[in-house]
Amino acid sequence: MTSNGANEADRPRVGVVMGSRSDWETMEHASATLTRLGILHEIRVVSAHRTPDLLFDYAATARDRGIQVIVAGAGGAAHLPGMLAAKTPLPVFGVPVQSKALNGMDSLLSIAQMPAGVPVGTLAIGRAGAVNAALLAGSVLALHDPAVASALDAFRSEQTRTVLDDPDPRT
Amino acid sequence: MTSNGANEADRPRVGVVMGSRSDWETMEHASATLTRLGILHEIRVVSAHRTPDLLFDYAATARDRGIQVIVAGAGGAAHLPGMLAAKTPLPVFGVPVQSKALNGMDSLLSIAQMPAGVPVGTLAIGRAGAVNAALLAGSVLALHDPAVASALDAFRSEQTRTVLDDPDPRT
Amino acid sequence: MTSNGANEADRPRVGVVMGSRSDWETMEHASATLTRLGILHEIRVVSAHRTPDLLFDYAATARDRGIQVIVAGAGGAAHLPGMLAAKTPLPVFGVPVQSKALNGMDSLLSIAQMPAGVPVGTLAIGRAGAVNAALLAGSVLALHDPAVASALDAFRSEQTRTVLDDPDPRT
Amino acid sequence: MTSNGANEADRPRVGVVMGSRSDWETMEHASATLTRLGILHEIRVVSAHRTPDLLFDYAATARDRGIQVIVAGAGGAAHLPGMLAAKTPLPVFGVPVQSKALNGMDSLLSIAQMPAGVPVGTLAIGRAGAVNAALLAGSVLALHDPAVASALDAFRSEQTRTVLDDPDPRT
Amino acid sequence: MTSNGANEADRPRVGVVMGSRSDWETMEHASATLTRLGILHEIRVVSAHRTPDLLFDYAATARDRGIQVIVAGAGGAAHLPGMLAAKTPLPVFGVPVQSKALNGMDSLLSIAQMPAGVPVGTLAIGRAGAVNAALLAGSVLALHDPAVASALDAFRSEQTRTVLDDPDPRT
Amino acid sequence: MTSNGANEADRPRVGVVMGSRSDWETMEHASATLTRLGILHEIRVVSAHRTPDLLFDYAATARDRGIQVIVAGAGGAAHLPGMLAAKTPLPVFGVPVQSKALNGMDSLLSIAQMPAGVPVGTLAIGRAGAVNAALLAGSVLALHDPAVASALDAFRSEQTRTVLDDPDPRT
Amino acid sequence: MTSNGANEADRPRVGVVMGSRSDWETMEHASATLTRLGILHEIRVVSAHRTPDLLFDYAATARDRGIQVIVAGAGGAAHLPGMLAAKTPLPVFGVPVQSKALNGMDSLLSIAQMPAGVPVGTLAIGRAGAVNAALLAGSVLALHDPAVASALDAFRSEQTRTVLDDPDPRT
Amino acid sequence: MTSNGANEADRPRVGVVMGSRSDWETMEHASATLTRLGILHEIRVVSAHRTPDLLFDYAATARDRGIQVIVAGAGGAAHLPGMLAAKTPLPVFGVPVQSKALNGMDSLLSIAQMPAGVPVGTLAIGRAGAVNAALLAGSVLALHDPAVASALDAFRSEQTRTVLDDPDPRT
Repeated sequence: MTSNGANEADRPRVGVVMGSRSDWETMEHASATLTRLGILHEIRVVSAHRTPDLLFDYAATARDRGIQVIVAGAGGAAHLPGMLAAKTPLPVFGVPVQSKALNGMDSLLSIAQMPAGVPVGTLAIGRAGAVNAALLAGSVLALHDPAVASALDAFRSEQTRTVLDDPDPRT
Repeated sequence: MTSNGANEADRPRVGVVMGSRSDWETMEHASATLTRLGILHEIRVVSAHRTPDLLFDYAATARDRGIQVIVAGAGGAAHLPGMLAAKTPLPVFGVPVQSKALNGMDSLLSIAQMPAGVPVGTLAIGRAGAVNAALLAGSVLALHDPAVASALDAFRSEQTRTVLDDPDPRT
Repeated sequence: MTSNGANEADRPRVGVVMGSRSDWETMEHASATLTRLGILHEIRVVSAHRTPDLLFDYAATARDRGIQVIVAGAGGAAHLPGMLAAKTPLPVFGVPVQSKALNGMDSLLSIAQMPAGVPVGTLAIGRAGAVNAALLAGSVLALHDPAVASALDAFRSEQTRTVLDDPDPRT
Repeated sequence: MTSNGANEADRPRVGVVMGSRSDWETMEHASATLTRLGILHEIRVVSAHRTPDLLFDYAATARDRGIQVIVAGAGGAAHLPGMLAAKTPLPVFGVPVQSKALNGMDSLLSIAQMPAGVPVGTLAIGRAGAVNAALLAGSVLALHDPAVASALDAFRSEQTRTVLDDPDPRT
Repeated sequence: MTSNGANEADRPRVGVVMGSRSDWETMEHASATLTRLGILHEIRVVSAHRTPDLLFDYAATARDRGIQVIVAGAGGAAHLPGMLAAKTPLPVFGVPVQSKALNGMDSLLSIAQMPAGVPVGTLAIGRAGAVNAALLAGSVLALHDPAVASALDAFRSEQTRTVLDDPDPRT
Repeated sequence: MTSNGANEADRPRVGVVMGSRSDWETMEHASATLTRLGILHEIRVVSAHRTPDLLFDYAATARDRGIQVIVAGAGGAAHLPGMLAAKTPLPVFGVPVQSKALNGMDSLLSIAQMPAGVPVGTLAIGRAGAVNAALLAGSVLALHDPAVASALDAFRSEQTRTVLDDPDPRT
Repeated sequence: MTSNGANEADRPRVGVVMGSRSDWETMEHASATLTRLGILHEIRVVSAHRTPDLLFDYAATARDRGIQVIVAGAGGAAHLPGMLAAKTPLPVFGVPVQSKALNGMDSLLSIAQMPAGVPVGTLAIGRAGAVNAALLAGSVLALHDPAVASALDAFRSEQTRTVLDDPDPRT
Repeated sequence: MTSNGANEADRPRVGVVMGSRSDWETMEHASATLTRLGILHEIRVVSAHRTPDLLFDYAATARDRGIQVIVAGAGGAAHLPGMLAAKTPLPVFGVPVQSKALNGMDSLLSIAQMPAGVPVGTLAIGRAGAVNAALLAGSVLALHDPAVASALDAFRSEQTRTVLDDPDPRT
């Protein structure tokens, strides 16, 4: 399930996980952004509630498998990001998926309001959060990877230029 | 850590767990209510985030140890009740502990808004919820335990009588 | 109104009640889940506000009619679960139906924030809550009914397997 | 429990009820305002959850006992005003008592968000709501009672004059 | 603008006012309910913000024109009900119209949270609130009008019967 | 009630009004800030609900009395700023006073969520909002008053310097 | 990008800026209202996050370019209005654009809750706020521009007349 | 202002910044946690609103000065973390400081709800968030720094042991 046909030498460095298949509509934007930054990543459904053992195993083995950052999306009483963070010292970034009734306010609070001791860096609700979780993962990898740093700088420059080149919203 | 000096024959039937020692101020009301109903129970701190393995072990072994109902209190991004429910088919009742900044609204949503498939019966925020989680545990046990049924009926009668006997709030 | 053509020996064990006909869209998921667990149940509209006497009668006679658990769904200023709990010592599980203006936040608070003394185990807003109320009822019955316990274990195993068998959300 | 030593001819016309003794701290302001308007009233604790039968009896007999308006205060999952309105065609005015965790937002929604068919006129959370419930009861009685109308006009004139006479907040 | 071709002897007794024409979609349910109760009423758009003088004039003259109850609907920063209540001692019942962005939570708080001294009896957000405002007006008029009292009793009986006659939501 | 012993030539240019005397604790910070900017202002309690005629008169005459900006503070169902804006074309800046139960969220929504056509520029809840309303009034006057412009620039420079001069929070 | 073919002598006096092109759907109502008041204005996309340098430059040069009021719309964690106000002493009016998940509540709080020292006058969420920001800008310019004052008075008179001329919402 | 007397070779790797001196009460817990992990860091007050130029300069030069992660705390309409992230590609972690009126809900939304393109990893409101921002910074540095990795593992082990060693909350 690596996002591209990677050989052994090209192990995924970011894990993109989500609580259910329906979260992919949101989390595909994390994956697309990572791809744009040239970051190999794996993608998988891991449910905190329906597959707790898989969650534990996934988190406990992530570092040894070469994962450096985990990006996790979940909605409602979203326990996935926090429980991953409980089982791995890797940085975990959480994406609150927009829930049906409460529009993701429940997801946001369930992810952001972690007690002291186990951090989850929380992004915005929905698609923007998924994109930004990938960019934040990129900024972490960029600290020691010039290629990612360049890709990130290019991404940021381009989005700046997009605004500057087209300043009139009426056209 | 059973709540009274029970011998083997008197195994605890309810597990009262909480995410941190500071939750005891809330959860002692669950324990006191269980005691009043004559229900043996065990009491322990189990942190979803700081002791995830203990949480899994606690939940996975609860049924075999004779536990029939779990009452779990936690605050903030409260993952304890939901993760217990992910690991045991026993009924789990969650108590949202009042949090400092958001007054327990985060706790309430983190416990109540579970996805389909893994239920947690959620009570009110704070002390009232702790009392009621114990009463709900009692109502479950009362289905097959006449002594608990009697104690529960007595509890309910008494609280009715307390209102009826003293209807004037000015005295 | 039992959910299947049951003879006297097969009395319903769970009462599924709701405040109005429009709540059926939500509560049918409770009924379907109970059916999947093999639990006989009755289904009925009982309005706290429009039929208070029926509500009282329903709750007061439930235990004698063989009901062991009540699952009650209501929306807005949802008084049905709490008033049922006021009139019966049986376990009552409440489902906050998603309301039009406030998306079920009013339903959730009206059901969850019960005062000490009369418990309602509250599930999530909407369909997920309806499914989970049925599962929670199942977990209560499973304590003394091996058939329900097996059905519940099978339900849980299957939902775990569904995630494990199909871990890639892109397919 | 009439608020003053009334003989038979002076039956109370307003019922001031509350869900628990602790609500008196709020509801005494309703009583004091009614007294100021010269309106005889009775005062009593009636708990929807702990004394549901009393609630039903109170509401069902109120009209025949000469009550014309009911003012009901309750907090949290506040079911008292709505259930009174379900059992009497008299006007019911609800006062959301400020709750501990959620500051009365739960009380407000539990009282205001009644479904179509059974109305409760809801006032503000806390003391202001209690005063205003009494004034609203007064405005109803004033329609057919010149003495109350005069007292109400005097009350309103005085509060206007209080502002006009002292327009500088620094003194 | 009386709701039916009334001669002088049949003056409207309830004023149904709303802040903008778009509120009619909500407030027509108040009008329809009043009509069903046989209560003559007038209907008009009065904007607190765009026609403040009309608002003052409307409220100041309402009692002399024979109005006994005012039902006022408004959305967003809804000032209409409160300002009417500031200018008339008549009972004012407020209907929070569902707003676009905040779903009527702003309307609800702007109407319900009145300071002590000027009461507005607030109903639920949207259509249910409009129906209930009319029913509450009916309950006030019913205190001294047997015809309205009968109509109200009939309305309540019928809605009870509707539930009782059709208890199975699946049919 | 001008804030200093002004003769006719020194008419107040800003009106600082508030819904009740208790709002002064908040609004005195608006007054102090205006004084610091050298802006003459008048201060007065004007209650939308208790003194609606005064409110109308105050707003209707403000422009002719030389007032150029109105700063209005109110709490709860805060109607004062919006009703002032309904009666005067002058810029009105609203300060949501922190309310007891809902911490000013009701005040904020009641002031900010004005319908199209009648604007109120809303500041933050409480003291910060009061200071900022005065600064915003200053920025309006500064467009045509060099002395106010200078004072405002000085105020801004000083607050910048305060941060720059003392960058270490531990000292 | 001035809104009409203005020569040098007719410099724009209001800057209408927004955080992204998608905000134009909201902010075009500010532009249309300014046009109706005959106020020259410029329109441009300035992103606090993607073009921070442009934001700083825009704000720092606005006064010298003849801008007297800035109207800024942004959604979500809306930093544009506040950062503009940090860089210019001109009055800044903020329009919270309705966000996808949280309906603009995040936008509203991010704009309104500015700390003491840097004011932003905040309008309602969405289209109404955009219209009102333009009207508020008009009220500021009207203090020293009789033409704008006349146009504003005409706007206000017309909206009053629209209500008065058509008081029956059913037609 | 480095947190300890570091020579040139020991440049701070984390920048701990906050919007005002009063935020230190919260942010000192970030500093203490970094110290416990043996991570050199600098501490400074940088106000987005009062010192925007300093903010820009701080962020623009951070990478070159050897900073690898920025931890930023702010309250209310908290723009500091987001604007830092707009000016640096370094990972920025935001701490919502608990605000007076809204308890930090405004801070949380202002930091978390960033638009796509500029990420801020958001932690919990208040002290827990400050501790966790430091731990998250540690987890980033630990990817390439064995000493920090060891310190982080030790921190996590100790907090686990603290729960395990003292499982009974009553002692």
